[in-house]
Amino acid sequence: MPKQKKANPRLARGRRRLREIHGAGGEAVVAAIAEISPDLARYIVEFAFGDVYSRQGLSLRERQIATVAALVAVGHAQPQLRSHIHGALNVGCRRREILEIIVQMAVYAGFPAASNAAVTARGVFAERDGQGLKN
Amino acid sequence: MPKQKKANPRLARGRRRLREIHGAGGEAVVAAIAEISPDLARYIVEFAFGDVYSRQGLSLRERQIATVAALVAVGHAQPQLRSHIHGALNVGCRRREILEIIVQMAVYAGFPAASNAAVTARGVFAERDGQGLKN
Amino acid sequence: MPKQKKANPRLARGRRRLREIHGAGGEAVVAAIAEISPDLARYIVEFAFGDVYSRQGLSLRERQIATVAALVAVGHAQPQLRSHIHGALNVGCRRREILEIIVQMAVYAGFPAASNAAVTARGVFAERDGQGLKN
Amino acid sequence: MPKQKKANPRLARGRRRLREIHGAGGEAVVAAIAEISPDLARYIVEFAFGDVYSRQGLSLRERQIATVAALVAVGHAQPQLRSHIHGALNVGCRRREILEIIVQMAVYAGFPAASNAAVTARGVFAERDGQGLKN
Amino acid sequence: MPKQKKANPRLARGRRRLREIHGAGGEAVVAAIAEISPDLARYIVEFAFGDVYSRQGLSLRERQIATVAALVAVGHAQPQLRSHIHGALNVGCRRREILEIIVQMAVYAGFPAASNAAVTARGVFAERDGQGLKN
Amino acid sequence: MPKQKKANPRLARGRRRLREIHGAGGEAVVAAIAEISPDLARYIVEFAFGDVYSRQGLSLRERQIATVAALVAVGHAQPQLRSHIHGALNVGCRRREILEIIVQMAVYAGFPAASNAAVTARGVFAERDGQGLKN
Repeated sequence: MPKQKKANPRLARGRRRLREIHGAGGEAVVAAIAEISPDLARYIVEFAFGDVYSRQGLSLRERQIATVAALVAVGHAQPQLRSHIHGALNVGCRRREILEIIVQMAVYAGFPAASNAAVTARGVFAERDGQGLKN
Repeated sequence: MPKQKKANPRLARGRRRLREIHGAGGEAVVAAIAEISPDLARYIVEFAFGDVYSRQGLSLRERQIATVAALVAVGHAQPQLRSHIHGALNVGCRRREILEIIVQMAVYAGFPAASNAAVTARGVFAERDGQGLKN
Repeated sequence: MPKQKKANPRLARGRRRLREIHGAGGEAVVAAIAEISPDLARYIVEFAFGDVYSRQGLSLRERQIATVAALVAVGHAQPQLRSHIHGALNVGCRRREILEIIVQMAVYAGFPAASNAAVTARGVFAERDGQGLKN
Repeated sequence: MPKQKKANPRLARGRRRLREIHGAGGEAVVAAIAEISPDLARYIVEFAFGDVYSRQGLSLRERQIATVAALVAVGHAQPQLRSHIHGALNVGCRRREILEIIVQMAVYAGFPAASNAAVTARGVFAERDGQGLKN
Repeated sequence: MPKQKKANPRLARGRRRLREIHGAGGEAVVAAIAEISPDLARYIVEFAFGDVYSRQGLSLRERQIATVAALVAVGHAQPQLRSHIHGALNVGCRRREILEIIVQMAVYAGFPAASNAAVTARGVFAERDGQGLKN
Repeated sequence: MPKQKKANPRLARGRRRLREIHGAGGEAVVAAIAEISPDLARYIVEFAFGDVYSRQGLSLRERQIATVAALVAVGHAQPQLRSHIHGALNVGCRRREILEIIVQMAVYAGFPAASNAAVTARGVFAERDGQGLKN
């Protein structure tokens, strides 16, 4: 992750939020992007996590429900969907709730989007089983 | 809305759910679709509301958060977004929570999608003000 | 529509095909685009109608089924959907067949896309009623 | 595939339609989804195949033309496109007709969508060659 | 536009950039969004204009070419396309260059996206004619 | 690539343009498509390269900026994005300029689209490093 000469409260807050939601896996994803574009990685941490995900007004659980639903619906963001299913489970969603969101999206984005998301969710669940995570 | 000769529990359940979430406004939307395609209207009630929205596992409030987020993100479904912002407010979301979802979607679908959704939300809030609704 | 100094068989063939499918309404649409960008209008006639729609291997009716389905599914092309519903009806599709395609797209692109298309179809049917067209 | 205690005519009809269009391959796809989300799999069979694909008003061949066109155009549904190219060939479309649809979609969704679909089609044709299928 | 108690260099820089590219029209668009969601408006100014559009490495003209192309291609962002065609013309693109981008997008996103963008461009050009602008 | 009995100036011009922008890699991509659909490959060369990319009014560098931006934004065209990042670098864009476009698209299409494009760009850069290319 990019270093900053001066104190950057948005970046610091974003790092905490990123870790809180996505854990070490999320930090690895951002670090991989930082190798290509340090600024893109920094904006993800500063803006997405430091600004938006640090806002009041919705719980982290509700924010993850919103993001998972959106990523299922847009359809071409499977790596991010994978990451945010992990994030949703990390902040208290249950696996069956993830599947509820996916089923619901069949109504709004069609069955192909829902089916592809179900395959992605299965992969996430298998990863977490392999890590000994109950949820 | 279409008539059924035999008892159709999915349709009956869907009608109750539709009314619970969207009120008379939702029934009017479905009736308008039924004038063009009675079967499309019936599937909306039976499948979307009678099957999916009648499921356990997520609260109605959480389901509306998911749907509003998805409709903001896909971008070309402003009439449905309008309808589901009403629905979300009807089942307990607050106006500021709708705006939180919209702001969050700037991260996942870009600022044009979020800005257009904000305009749609303003229209819904104005309608509700005109109806004397506090939320 | 743009003029050509030399004989341009693709343009001539495309004009015939455009007229065959879309009639005077289609020519008006292309003429309106030609006022902004003569070359875009020419490519539509040459490539879309003179090359692609002049191919063998599918009937015009089947080609219109494909195009209407695609335009319903992508969701942000209502003016073109309107135009191609007219075109489909002009080459032998029935109104109820248009509605069948729209209903089917609910499965693949979700109910918002299908509902918006149904509204567009209603407008086309009303226009054709106003013109005294039976189909 | 999910079991049902009571007779479920939509599910039974959907299973027949699924088998008719997609054969054993389609059943395997649905079974794979059922391992993750039995309800999503059930809705696919009941609603997509038991309701929509069991409707009158378009031939199966025409329905597959519509679905293949839509999946080419939306672009992010290659697994479903693959499955429906198989389905289209199973119900009487010819390989060259699939390619006609794909070429036509270059007009409505651009060359990247058409090119990616052509690659998917090549894979399907190779699979069918490997199975000794003439079409 | 939102007020800030403390000095906010990103916001100040973003305001300058917004004014430079979009003029009074851009400020009006942001002000309209600020009436609904002050934070969304602030993020547009801080992040989109203060961070991203204030970066080195591409000229403003090239950045506007990129944005106009993207908005033509995604298709459901006509208000933003309208705004960025104005912006592109403000920073030195010529009207015929806007039309070149639109024609080129027919290749990558299909003719419906290009045609709808041409209609939007015509509206922008008429507005500018009405304001006595040569370009 | 398809052969033509008669002189076909659009095809000849398109082949030159394709080679100029994409080099041997681009010809291989078109040849692969020609194995599946010779006509789709021919239209790519004739229309995309012989008509559109052979137009005056924008430099090749600006055209590639437009195309890369659009392909980042639409999100489901990674093979074409890969190809056009190569093309952009071949006609004079610098690697850091590609990354600027990608970062900018986070504003208009969201961070998932930008992040996936960054991964694609990394792959292109590694390929070019392996070929000993400085840019």
